[in-house]
Amino acid sequence: MRAFEELMAFERQTQALGQIAGRLGWDQETMMPRGSAEQRGEEMAAIEAVLHARRSDPRVGEWLEQAATEGAVEEAHVREIRRAYERARKVPEALASRLARVTSEAQGKWASARADEDWEAFAPVLEEVVALKREEGAALAEGGDIYDAMLQDYEPGTTAAEISAIFDAMRPRLVALRAAILDQPEPKGIVGTFPAGKQMKLTRQLARAFGYDMARGRVDKAVHPFSSGSGMDVRITTRTNEQDPFNCLYSTIHEVGHAAYEQNIDPAYLLTPLGRGVSMGVHESQSRIYENQIGRSAAFTGYLYEQMTAIFGSISVENAREFYSAVNCVRRGYIRTEADEVQYNLHIMLRFDLERALMAGDLQVGDLETAWNDRFEADFGYRVDMPSNGVLQDVHWSVGLFGYFPTYSLGNVYAGCLHQAMCAALPDLDAQLAQGVTETATGWLRVNLQRHGGLYAPREIIETASGIAPSEGPLLDYLEAKFTDLYNL
Amino acid sequence: MRAFEELMAFERQTQALGQIAGRLGWDQETMMPRGSAEQRGEEMAAIEAVLHARRSDPRVGEWLEQAATEGAVEEAHVREIRRAYERARKVPEALASRLARVTSEAQGKWASARADEDWEAFAPVLEEVVALKREEGAALAEGGDIYDAMLQDYEPGTTAAEISAIFDAMRPRLVALRAAILDQPEPKGIVGTFPAGKQMKLTRQLARAFGYDMARGRVDKAVHPFSSGSGMDVRITTRTNEQDPFNCLYSTIHEVGHAAYEQNIDPAYLLTPLGRGVSMGVHESQSRIYENQIGRSAAFTGYLYEQMTAIFGSISVENAREFYSAVNCVRRGYIRTEADEVQYNLHIMLRFDLERALMAGDLQVGDLETAWNDRFEADFGYRVDMPSNGVLQDVHWSVGLFGYFPTYSLGNVYAGCLHQAMCAALPDLDAQLAQGVTETATGWLRVNLQRHGGLYAPREIIETASGIAPSEGPLLDYLEAKFTDLYNL
Repeated sequence: MRAFEELMAFERQTQALGQIAGRLGWDQETMMPRGSAEQRGEEMAAIEAVLHARRSDPRVGEWLEQAATEGAVEEAHVREIRRAYERARKVPEALASRLARVTSEAQGKWASARADEDWEAFAPVLEEVVALKREEGAALAEGGDIYDAMLQDYEPGTTAAEISAIFDAMRPRLVALRAAILDQPEPKGIVGTFPAGKQMKLTRQLARAFGYDMARGRVDKAVHPFSSGSGMDVRITTRTNEQDPFNCLYSTIHEVGHAAYEQNIDPAYLLTPLGRGVSMGVHESQSRIYENQIGRSAAFTGYLYEQMTAIFGSISVENAREFYSAVNCVRRGYIRTEADEVQYNLHIMLRFDLERALMAGDLQVGDLETAWNDRFEADFGYRVDMPSNGVLQDVHWSVGLFGYFPTYSLGNVYAGCLHQAMCAALPDLDAQLAQGVTETATGWLRVNLQRHGGLYAPREIIETASGIAPSEGPLLDYLEAKFTDLYNL
Repeated sequence: MRAFEELMAFERQTQALGQIAGRLGWDQETMMPRGSAEQRGEEMAAIEAVLHARRSDPRVGEWLEQAATEGAVEEAHVREIRRAYERARKVPEALASRLARVTSEAQGKWASARADEDWEAFAPVLEEVVALKREEGAALAEGGDIYDAMLQDYEPGTTAAEISAIFDAMRPRLVALRAAILDQPEPKGIVGTFPAGKQMKLTRQLARAFGYDMARGRVDKAVHPFSSGSGMDVRITTRTNEQDPFNCLYSTIHEVGHAAYEQNIDPAYLLTPLGRGVSMGVHESQSRIYENQIGRSAAFTGYLYEQMTAIFGSISVENAREFYSAVNCVRRGYIRTEADEVQYNLHIMLRFDLERALMAGDLQVGDLETAWNDRFEADFGYRVDMPSNGVLQDVHWSVGLFGYFPTYSLGNVYAGCLHQAMCAALPDLDAQLAQGVTETATGWLRVNLQRHGGLYAPREIIETASGIAPSEGPLLDYLEAKFTDLYNL
């Protein structure tokens, strides 16, 4: 056998084991009995240990040295395997297992600190996490920038400088747009009776309409919406709030964006490094364009308005235009996950700047809460009232995710580029969406982006699909046009 | 670290990975989308390969050589690890993976052959399975008896001669009892409306009443009832038939017997070789005593009669005695899984004799259907009418389970011994069961047997718990007394 083939056979098993670990995570959030957590912790640790050992197996290094590749696909395989191998080899096992232990503990402390509104109870363990992540970052960076090294875990090929340039261009235009909107009267919200069962029925109907293949997936309820798995088994979750059906419906459309990306990758890449979405940012571009540019468009909300009044009866808005306004309402708030399209990126920029400062050693955990609250006030105009609305609102840092937040906004930026190209390519788009037909849009994404999986690097696939280098321009143009119309600015 | 501790740390991870493989199996039967089977096949193969490599890892051999043990628990750990290690080392990897491939194919062919009533379509692949299993048996036996070597996978320490001696003593008494019963008029069955939702509610209530801990388990529907997992995550499945509620209720009680055994093992043995039921026979003794000696007793069925009439209204039997007769009805039939307490073991003896002959080379697969039908007629008095009622009814042989069938009857024999001792120890037993209180009985089993997990060998734990060496006497005495009363013999 060629070294390349031996490498791929080994890698295929590793990918299969990775899918199993992911399915265990799904089970934990949906099906696992509440008394099983401790045993599950050991099971997860066992399979993670197997995965780490395989990723850093010296035979992989030998095969990589000997592997002769033919063509772009084989080269991409080797590129991705090498990246995972080098990453696994750079981080000493003792550090990796200490990080796993401390972040597991920190996540528990974060949850109770958030419930108790007690930042001081969380700060000491976050300090440990930050110290360990800096140590890991230094090992990964090998003398280069720590934060740039961390970004490679989520958005390979990007740098903090690139992201900064984009964010610096976005911030003033978003702050100005937000201020103009909040000067206007708040649109009417929907009010009605939204039984959970009916929401779930509609949400499954929307999932299918957006191209989610239920024969290779399923929709369950969980505390947090997520998508899990690749290839032939990609499952999503949602949740219902009987006062607010948009929570269920739009989180489903969002997760369907992630899930459809995984389902639509060329089956030839199944259980290979190319058989998964190429980066967190590109992944998020799919969930965002499904949720926002398509799902929150005037055309599609017109269709959704008809569906909702048919299912739920009166919902206290009088017509499709009022419904469109309600779906896109911009409100004062503190919480990233509840933010609208305009404010969302401001939440991300705040986290990006703070986490870079933490990793650079320019900001200490002891000063983090104050830094958060000051920055929030500067961008949003009012002060954080309690830690769960501020520095304790997100789980990410407790589990060691530094470098992850900016990929959410990169996803929005990518979605803006893709949407611009899609609109140019599909003159009938709005007419189709107004009928509830999303296949034209999702089909365009499938053909131009999703099917390629990990074949092209993130910037490359966005550029190939949208015809322009990733830039904040299209997103900002879209937001300004949409909200100028919505709010008569 | 002592060699023993290194061995145990490695083994603990292996056990955790084994639990993961089991949970994947559960997912496959309950939750997996129908389009995911092919990918799941690769995932299962990947984790099985990891497990096989770990069980036969040369380091395990070195640790076993060096491990100094202290006390009975450490000795039992080493005994169980050594057994798994030697088994894994004896079977060449090429044979193991060929067996996995051929049995996977054979299971598919069996299912379609059974649906088509086409024995000839299945025979050739069964021939392959038999040849491979004989090869595996020869590798395991190292010159000894092939079938005895196979039995060790399911009932360590037993031999075909021992089982034969028990079965030879059972057969004439069971044949005579069966004949006497079938000379009597058939008792009335229950008739009524049994909605699936109400069956599931009652089945969950019964599961809890029999000591199943729902905080560390769950009940779902599946095509076949089964129990899956050990320790803190033990899940069961059931199924509903709206004409026949006993199918759901008694399969649940049966699976709760398996599940409670796994849940009640000393937590100190969690994720060790002692943290699981010690053998298939001892496992079956628990499911059978829950289902039959307790669940089908006059006392408990009196309680169940009240519950069922309260839930389902009229069920066409007039009183608890008629209900007890309906629950224990002995009917002519062909199918092992539908057989009553009297006839069940005759089905097993048939399979035991045929599979021993196959493994010894005394019977060819080409002659198997005729041999089955002749033996069936000799024991049951009428001829098999179609293959799905005969040689094609069970999945076991297609997946290479030779040596497994006799453990079902061993379980019944063990249950007889345990029940005799339990009745002697608990004079109030019937009074409690008549109130629906099963804790007295299940508590006795927990303390005397279940908590020990794999600490004692199968015969040893039955002897310790019941005070007598395993023997068919108590089971036959119990069956003769029960059915003499039920049928006025």
